[in-house]
Parts: sequence; structure tokens; C-alpha cells
Amino acid sequence: MDTQNDIDAAEAIPEGFRRLPWRSGYGLAVGPLYERAEPDGGFTRAFRVGTHHLNTLNNCHGGMLMGFADVSFGHAISHRTGRNWITVRLVLDFIAGAPFGAWVEGTGKVVAEDGAFRTIQGRLWTGDTLIATGTGIFKVITLRDKN
Amino acid sequence: MDTQNDIDAAEAIPEGFRRLPWRSGYGLAVGPLYERAEPDGGFTRAFRVGTHHLNTLNNCHGGMLMGFADVSFGHAISHRTGRNWITVRLVLDFIAGAPFGAWVEGTGKVVAEDGAFRTIQGRLWTGDTLIATGTGIFKVITLRDKN
Repeated sequence: MDTQNDIDAAEAIPEGFRRLPWRSGYGLAVGPLYERAEPDGGFTRAFRVGTHHLNTLNNCHGGMLMGFADVSFGHAISHRTGRNWITVRLVLDFIAGAPFGAWVEGTGKVVAEDGAFRTIQGRLWTGDTLIATGTGIFKVITLRDKN
Repeated sequence: MDTQNDIDAAEAIPEGFRRLPWRSGYGLAVGPLYERAEPDGGFTRAFRVGTHHLNTLNNCHGGMLMGFADVSFGHAISHRTGRNWITVRLVLDFIAGAPFGAWVEGTGKVVAEDGAFRTIQGRLWTGDTLIATGTGIFKVITLRDKN
């Protein structure tokens, strides 16, 4: 992979996606990430696998996919309500790898609510290939609740 | 947080830890990461929570902790055998947050083997505080096996 390939990959953003304004912290380190609102009221988050996401096999690192699953699944809360959340439990099953340059998409859906807790099922994919599926338990918080 | 604090935090590496030579890819983006061999034949991996790990609450992002759990648990394979591995399933339960500047440690232990698959239990902690526990299923691979 070379610089020109990196530039080409970085520029190829599918229609309707906007870049998330994450200019600091973890979101900056692993970004850029993108989002598109869907007609059904849902959303798709996405990123292009770049050199800073790779493992030693030149596929996207599992840790990156887990982090992306976290922000994709959990956003099922913030997308609907604008509320913040923390992750309580995440279960992720890996089905296929995501090679350098792949445009990886993800989404999640709230399937159960109990008090402040939400159970969310989600998936990650690229094109027609399912990359991972999972289930998370997330807690809705206010910004004063730092736990 | 300011630059001096960042430098102080980055320099405070507990005795016996060496920096992992991850100079590219995901390991570089989320690093530096550290490792120490333990007298019982096990290992501890670690990182200092820096600005590039933070969420909007100024704690370590759950995605970063998941990625760190992945490389800490899975290393139970590579530490013993030098063999590579991929993640098949990871279940992680979050117990406490890790604030900016915390020295986060993690390890894993193989508790079951079946063919190329290993079940590994692991945990993350900082000082006396348990951050997360989890169980992963990992597959031992050769570098020719890109799945």
C-alpha cells in the first residue's frame, strides 16, 4: 500500500455519509468515521479500513472492529434520543475479515429496555459480506454520571 | 490535561515492562502498549490512558478497552507458543471505567483447547480496581491462513 492508495481510499466516501466531528480522543485516533441517516429512522455508521487499522495480516484489527461495533451498536440509543451511554457488556462474533481499503458499515437496534439498560443487536458488514454480529447491553447516562 | 501532564504520564512506566515494537497499523494508532513476563510463566500487557484513548466523559473509551482486551486475552496463545491467532468471539463485561492517566493492565489464560480453537478467560484492571472481565474464543493460525 502506498500514499496514493491511501488518498484514493480516503476520498471514496459513498453518497449520503457525513464525517463525524470527532476531533479528539479515541474517535480521532481510529477515525475518520462516517454516518448516514436511513429512511426507516435508523442509521448506518462506517469507516474505510486504512493503514492505521491493520493487524499483522493486513486486515482490519479485531480490536478496531470491536471498537467500531461499540460505537455502532450503542448509537442506537443516541441516534433516537440524543442521550449518552456507556457499554456494560458486548458480545461480538467474528464471521469474516475486512481487508485494507474495505468500506465497513455497521448499525444496531434496541431490542429490549429495562430501566436505564438497553439491549442492542447489531452487525457489521462490507458490501455483501457480513463481518460480525453481536449483542450489547448499554446503560443510558447523563454526562454527570461518570460510571 | 496539558502537554506536560501527557509527558509525565507517558514516562511513568512501571518496572519490568517493555514497550511492544508495534510501529504500524492499529497497534501504533492506539499505542504505545507494554508487556511484562511474570514469574509464573504468564504475562501482563499494559497501557497508560492518554488523550488519544478518551471518550467524551474523559475516561478511556470502551472501544479502546475492547481492543486492549483482545490483544491481552489472545496473547495467552502467542506468549506460550509464538503462534498467531484471530478472534472468533469476545465477550466483555465492563465493571469500572479507566480515567485519563490510569495505567491499565490486562492478561488472559487458556482454559480450554479444541482443535485450533482456544477458550481464554481474561481481565483488565488498574491498581486494585477491576475494569473488565471476559471470555474469548480464538483460533490459532499460520500467517498463510488469512481467514
